[in-house]
Order: sequence, then C-alpha cells, then structure tokens
Amino acid sequence: MTIFNIWDLAGTAAFAISGALFAINKKMDGFGIFVIAFVTAVGGGTLRDVLINTYPITWMSDLNYIYTIFISVVLAILLRKKIGYLSRSLFLFDAIGLGIFTIIGTEIGIQHGFHSIICVSLGMITATFGGVIRDTLSNESPLIFHREIYATACIIGATTFIVLNYLQVEVWVNQLLTTLMVIIVRLIAVRFKWQLPTFYQ
Amino acid sequence: MTIFNIWDLAGTAAFAISGALFAINKKMDGFGIFVIAFVTAVGGGTLRDVLINTYPITWMSDLNYIYTIFISVVLAILLRKKIGYLSRSLFLFDAIGLGIFTIIGTEIGIQHGFHSIICVSLGMITATFGGVIRDTLSNESPLIFHREIYATACIIGATTFIVLNYLQVEVWVNQLLTTLMVIIVRLIAVRFKWQLPTFYQ
Amino acid sequence: MTIFNIWDLAGTAAFAISGALFAINKKMDGFGIFVIAFVTAVGGGTLRDVLINTYPITWMSDLNYIYTIFISVVLAILLRKKIGYLSRSLFLFDAIGLGIFTIIGTEIGIQHGFHSIICVSLGMITATFGGVIRDTLSNESPLIFHREIYATACIIGATTFIVLNYLQVEVWVNQLLTTLMVIIVRLIAVRFKWQLPTFYQ
Repeated sequence: MTIFNIWDLAGTAAFAISGALFAINKKMDGFGIFVIAFVTAVGGGTLRDVLINTYPITWMSDLNYIYTIFISVVLAILLRKKIGYLSRSLFLFDAIGLGIFTIIGTEIGIQHGFHSIICVSLGMITATFGGVIRDTLSNESPLIFHREIYATACIIGATTFIVLNYLQVEVWVNQLLTTLMVIIVRLIAVRFKWQLPTFYQ
Repeated sequence: MTIFNIWDLAGTAAFAISGALFAINKKMDGFGIFVIAFVTAVGGGTLRDVLINTYPITWMSDLNYIYTIFISVVLAILLRKKIGYLSRSLFLFDAIGLGIFTIIGTEIGIQHGFHSIICVSLGMITATFGGVIRDTLSNESPLIFHREIYATACIIGATTFIVLNYLQVEVWVNQLLTTLMVIIVRLIAVRFKWQLPTFYQ
Repeated sequence: MTIFNIWDLAGTAAFAISGALFAINKKMDGFGIFVIAFVTAVGGGTLRDVLINTYPITWMSDLNYIYTIFISVVLAILLRKKIGYLSRSLFLFDAIGLGIFTIIGTEIGIQHGFHSIICVSLGMITATFGGVIRDTLSNESPLIFHREIYATACIIGATTFIVLNYLQVEVWVNQLLTTLMVIIVRLIAVRFKWQLPTFYQ
C-alpha cells in the first residue's frame, strides 16, 4: 500500500463519515446510512474512473475501501452524540474529504496527460460528485449550487497544485499544502459567509 | 437464447411493468411512461455493465429487451384497471424484478471473478439502481432509503446464492431458490412492517 | 475542425445558454450557473459516449467544448436582460440544442452499426439527458416527463434522418432538414399545446 492509497482511504473515511452523519440526520435506517456513506465516499472517484476509462474501478478491486466505509459508518453511528452537533461535524468532515479528493483527482488527471483545465475539472468532479449524488438521492438541492464557496475552493487548490507541480515542488509537500488550502478556503468561506455573486435580473 | 436470457427478460418485464404502473400513477403521458419503464428495467444492469466495463451494454445489442419493455408497457396500460390497485401490483412486480436481478447481478460478479462482497454489491446495484433512477427522475426520495427491508432482501438472497454456489448446489436450483428467497423476504417484510433500526439522536 | 465539430459546438452553445438561463432563473451563483450550463451541454453526449464505450469523452480531449460553454455562459449573463423573458429564450435555445443533438446522436449510432431503434434511442439520449440532469440537480421533475411533445420531437426527427439516410439523401441536406424538423415540431407543439395522452385510471 502506497502513501497515495492511504491518502485516498483517508478521503474515503472523511466523506463516509460526512455521508453517514447526513443520513442519520435524515432519520434513515442502518442500510440507508451505509448506502449514503458509500455513494458520498466513492461516487466522485467512480465517475472520474468511468470518464477516463480506468478499470477496474478502485473500490471493486481493493476491498479496503469498503472496509474503511464500513468502519466509518459504525464509528459515526456510535459516536453521533459525542461528536457534537451533527451539522457542524458533517461540515468539517465534508471539507476534509473535499480537500483530499480534489488533489487526488487532479493528480490522476496529470498522470493521464490531460490538459490542465481538464485536470482541475477532474479534481472538482472527484471531490464534489459524491456529495451531489448524496444530495440528489436524498431529494435535496445539491449543496454545491447554493451555499458558500464550495467547488471554488476545489478550483483554487487544484490550480495551485498544477502550478506548484509545474515548478517541480516535491509531490508530497505539494499534496499536503494544496489539500490544506482547499480545506482552509472552505472553512474560512463558511465562517465569513463568503459567497459568489448571483445574476438574477 | 439461453435460460439466462429468458430469466433476465422476465426480470426486465417485471420491472418494466412496475415502472409503467408507477408512471401511470404519476399521471405521466405515454412517452413518460415508456421512459420510466425503460430506466427502471435497464438502469441497474446498465450501471453494472459500465462499472465492470462489459460492452456492448446488453439492451443495445439485443433488441429483445426493448421489445419486452414495449410489450410490458402496453400491457400495463391496457390492464391498469384490471390488475387492481395500482400500488399493490406495482409492489408485487417490483419484488419479482428485485429477486431476479439480484441473483443475475451476483452471478455476473462471480463470473468476472470479483470478491464475494463485490458480487453481493453488484447484485444489489443491478436490482435496486433502476428503481433509484425511477424515483429520482420522478422527484421522489428513493424507496430504498425509507421503507421496509428492501435492499436487505437483496443482500440476504445474494449471500445465500454465493454460499450455495460454493457448496456446488446446481446452478438452476440455486437461482430459483435464492430468487424466491429475495421475493419472499421482501413480501413478508412489507406484510409485517419489518424495519431496520434508525439512529437519529 | 470538420462541419460535424462545428455543428456539435453549435448544439453545445445552445444547450449551454439554455442551462445558464435556467440557473440564473434559479438565482444560482456564478459557479452554479457554469456547472448547470456544463452538464446541460455535455451530459447527454457524455452518457452516449459511456454507453457505446467511445473514449476519450469528446469534451475531455477537445477544449473547444469548454471554451464554447464558458463564452455562452458569459454571454447569457451579460445579455440576460436584453434577450427578453428568460423563460422564452431558454425554451428557444433548448429547442435548438434538442434538434442538433438528436441528429448528431443518431448519426453516431449509425456509424457504430447499431440497429435503427438503438440509433433513435441514442439520438434521444444525447438530446434529452443533459436536460434531465439539469432538472434533477435543480430538484425539479424533469421537463421531459410532464410537458408538451418533447422527446417525441426527437423520435420523429431521428426516424426521418434514418429513412432519408437509407434513401441516400446527401448527409448535410439530411442533417439540416431533420434538425429543423425537430426544432419546428417542438415549437409548434408548445405553441398549440400538443400533448401526448395520459392513462391515469
């Protein structure tokens, strides 16, 4: 198992916990909680793999993903009262998953030789699409469209990763730095209620 | 045409009828009824084929699927008053489709050499994803998350299939037995209002 | 760049504008507008490419698609007051995209040697699926199921294209004619409130 895998599993765990807390909040049953945690955690990476035609899909060949999700769900259920206000914890874990998956998606795009714009898009798709499926399945308008700076944090982090990569900054430094950048931009944006402009007539 | 194909077409018909009854109930027009019947019937199998990268997608190379769906829709429209309460019939056909597609998906997973956990997941995806698309397109919260034992019936049937397959029970006996098991667990669960626990604080 | 590409980019622009106007109307922020314009424009073609297993997905290898969408979104935002009632413009651009993408999808199906029924389906999927994703992400019941003749216009145009193609009518004449046919059927259907029958008991 490489550093890359561990990083990917950490993102999976963060999104699985955020998905599980979301589903608990929606009063879903045990199975519903697992499914929502699962699609939140693997949805973005699966769409990315299908779009760039890489098979087998990661979670189908490496069972560590399913184990990670299972443990995350159990922890989320057991600790749901201890981890404080559900919505605040959900938000924090979602931000962590967002940061990790943005950079992983961007890196995979670079490895496949795509244009920088496509690499940023792949980072964003990997990071946000799981949440989009989670929201759509729960019959909610996806978070990505209506709240504070969300995908924009991905774009900022992914673009910085590509620039630093071009400047030959060491990979693990670059990964750590830009992942944190996505998380921090997201946290600050929510804290200070930063928003992008709307254009309704 | 093999037994496998006939079985697959039977599942397609069952889900197409359940989708058509659902759409009739939603007061959709003739085309909407066909589309909902179509996605309900082929949605799960299509996602499975994309995930395991098997091409061509079955319904694109074998027109019997489209013919089966078309005939099922026409029958559902013609007999909608005779087949009694729409919601009860819908529920029955949905359970039949659930049983057949669970076992087909599980078998295809085994044929492709996936780990048992992935085979069970593929069975569940094949059986439930069409209904998830149907519900999402109709702007409803998917049935799978809120009602009585649903995907759990798939898990029980798929796991039993794998165990009996390992014990070298003859395939057709195994298929028949476990398909019926999924259907019966689902029917009994609804009859006695079995539910999985929720964990809302 | 071939005539085919230009045609495809024209459809992309039409759907991107319709998606952007839709999102402006929903009071989304700048990023949300871009994402909705993007999925409306490329969603149908992406699903088609995944279903028939053609890689790389067009918009990932040819950046002109992303540039076209970006320019369309900027134009839609800048001109949103000048292009008159949002809903009427949205409707017109949607009809243009519908016409172009129906014929493109149908042609690609023919090139891959699929049966005529599948070619018509691919035309319809290419033309309508972007709008279905747009509506689903925006938490609305998809337009395709509830309004006047919509996908039916695609079926009429796609079928005519296949017949004329069989009769060896020159390709560009056929394309132009059948694309216009889809657009006109759609416009007339809305103007005169044509509807397909429903079958609610």
